[in-house]
Amino acid sequence: MPNFGNVLMVGTGLMAGSLAKALRERGLCQQVAGYARRIEPLEKGIELGILDVAVNDLSAAIQQADLIVLGVPTLAVGQYMQTIAKHKKASAVVTDVASVKGDVVDNIISELGELPAWFVPGHPIAGAEHSGIEASNSQLYENHKVILTPSEVTDAQALALVQNLWQQVGAEVVCMDIVEHDKVLAATSHLPHALAFVLMDTLLSLPKKHDVFDFAAGGFRDFSRIASSHPVMWHDIMLANKAAILELIADYRQHLNKLEQLIETDNSDAILDIFTRAKAARDDFTQRLHNKLKSSNESY
Amino acid sequence: MPNFGNVLMVGTGLMAGSLAKALRERGLCQQVAGYARRIEPLEKGIELGILDVAVNDLSAAIQQADLIVLGVPTLAVGQYMQTIAKHKKASAVVTDVASVKGDVVDNIISELGELPAWFVPGHPIAGAEHSGIEASNSQLYENHKVILTPSEVTDAQALALVQNLWQQVGAEVVCMDIVEHDKVLAATSHLPHALAFVLMDTLLSLPKKHDVFDFAAGGFRDFSRIASSHPVMWHDIMLANKAAILELIADYRQHLNKLEQLIETDNSDAILDIFTRAKAARDDFTQRLHNKLKSSNESY
Repeated sequence: MPNFGNVLMVGTGLMAGSLAKALRERGLCQQVAGYARRIEPLEKGIELGILDVAVNDLSAAIQQADLIVLGVPTLAVGQYMQTIAKHKKASAVVTDVASVKGDVVDNIISELGELPAWFVPGHPIAGAEHSGIEASNSQLYENHKVILTPSEVTDAQALALVQNLWQQVGAEVVCMDIVEHDKVLAATSHLPHALAFVLMDTLLSLPKKHDVFDFAAGGFRDFSRIASSHPVMWHDIMLANKAAILELIADYRQHLNKLEQLIETDNSDAILDIFTRAKAARDDFTQRLHNKLKSSNESY
Repeated sequence: MPNFGNVLMVGTGLMAGSLAKALRERGLCQQVAGYARRIEPLEKGIELGILDVAVNDLSAAIQQADLIVLGVPTLAVGQYMQTIAKHKKASAVVTDVASVKGDVVDNIISELGELPAWFVPGHPIAGAEHSGIEASNSQLYENHKVILTPSEVTDAQALALVQNLWQQVGAEVVCMDIVEHDKVLAATSHLPHALAFVLMDTLLSLPKKHDVFDFAAGGFRDFSRIASSHPVMWHDIMLANKAAILELIADYRQHLNKLEQLIETDNSDAILDIFTRAKAARDDFTQRLHNKLKSSNESY
């Protein structure tokens, strides 16, 4: 069994907390130290047995770390890189969990002048509408994909280590081009989140004659669940992946306008066509997800 | 315990099938007969013990029924009313489960020249992305709301009977103005379904360089779940509740345009504002739903 040594979590939200918990439960590290700007999540992390050490002195903790995981919101990743580059052990490997990779890499280059070989950009495709270290779940990454977006400068051993890290906590690791990553995620994650936030915003602006939420059922609950996601995290993602998200919002509006026009003109066949195609694609997605989970469970 | 006598389901999908199952399991009727245009759902209904009788001769079945439930898609409700009005017992009560009430009532008036006193327009706020009689669930209506939209012509005893029917299978009955019903449901159900179908349509139109669905996780699964709903049923709803839905699509587009513009101009504070407000409203909705389910469970 591999041992990732002294692990340092910079930022201790749901993602870092769940990774810490998984590493400790499986005996995959010597210790997990946690750093956060506020003291509360660190106290909570110690209390819940998710962290071994609450870090006061970030530079000192960086000096001791073998593996550093940046678990801060997307726009905050870059600002830690100067301190990390200055104090880290030569052998230490650094990775992150931010949902947008192009912007993170751009920020690091503007901080350090180059993308360091010891940094492996990563993005676990897992999450929940709950956030914070208290929502940590050591099984969060099991049967989930983690996308890594190494570049030509990335050190092969650093990459292998981060790959192994995620595999050890049950994830399937996929390497992807950084631009492709940001486009794919804009489509399946960032756009849906934007749409869900906009739905809540729209409903909140309706005249308060009746409370529409009193008559919402399971469909609405599931559809709007992602609007309960962390506002700062999603604010960061919208700005960090701006170009890809704006392109998809424009695409989406075109398709919305098309449906609107079909309803206006009672174009029965075309509406039925869209809904039938949409249902088939959604059913196919469910089937594939189901098959994937089934075959993953068999291999555990 | 009340007994609803000979119950006839016209249309045998998920809604009618679940009601049939609940009535039979709880011993609330003499028998449930089912009529459908195709033979398959009737055979399935008999095989699964959901229906007692598969109806061949609709007029004869109407003559014998004490309670008739129209479980057909919204746009199909009107077309059965001539036959029902001609053959029903004087004492028989008729209700429906269509998601749009204004259009159903308009169609009935144009079929019969008036809205009959024995018809109680109804809409159970329950459903699933699964459809068909084989998905029937006798607990589907427990702790769910059923909205009835009686008018001044509705017979008080007929209304009381339909109210009792739904209460007996575990639902909470609410009476509402017909126009308000169609506006509220457009907001919390019809608009979200339109948005989910449009999302799938948008994603299907992306260049096939990568399969975006391969990298979709739980957030996407929940958000898109309602796009697996019955295409004909939802096609009918879009056309039947056209005015209210088009108004909400226009509202939604305005809010989408606003978010787009805030992202374009990096308006950090305003984006965070929207997301924070949206999350608070969604969290509040979850909390209320949770409290409601808790207090309902305690009373059972």
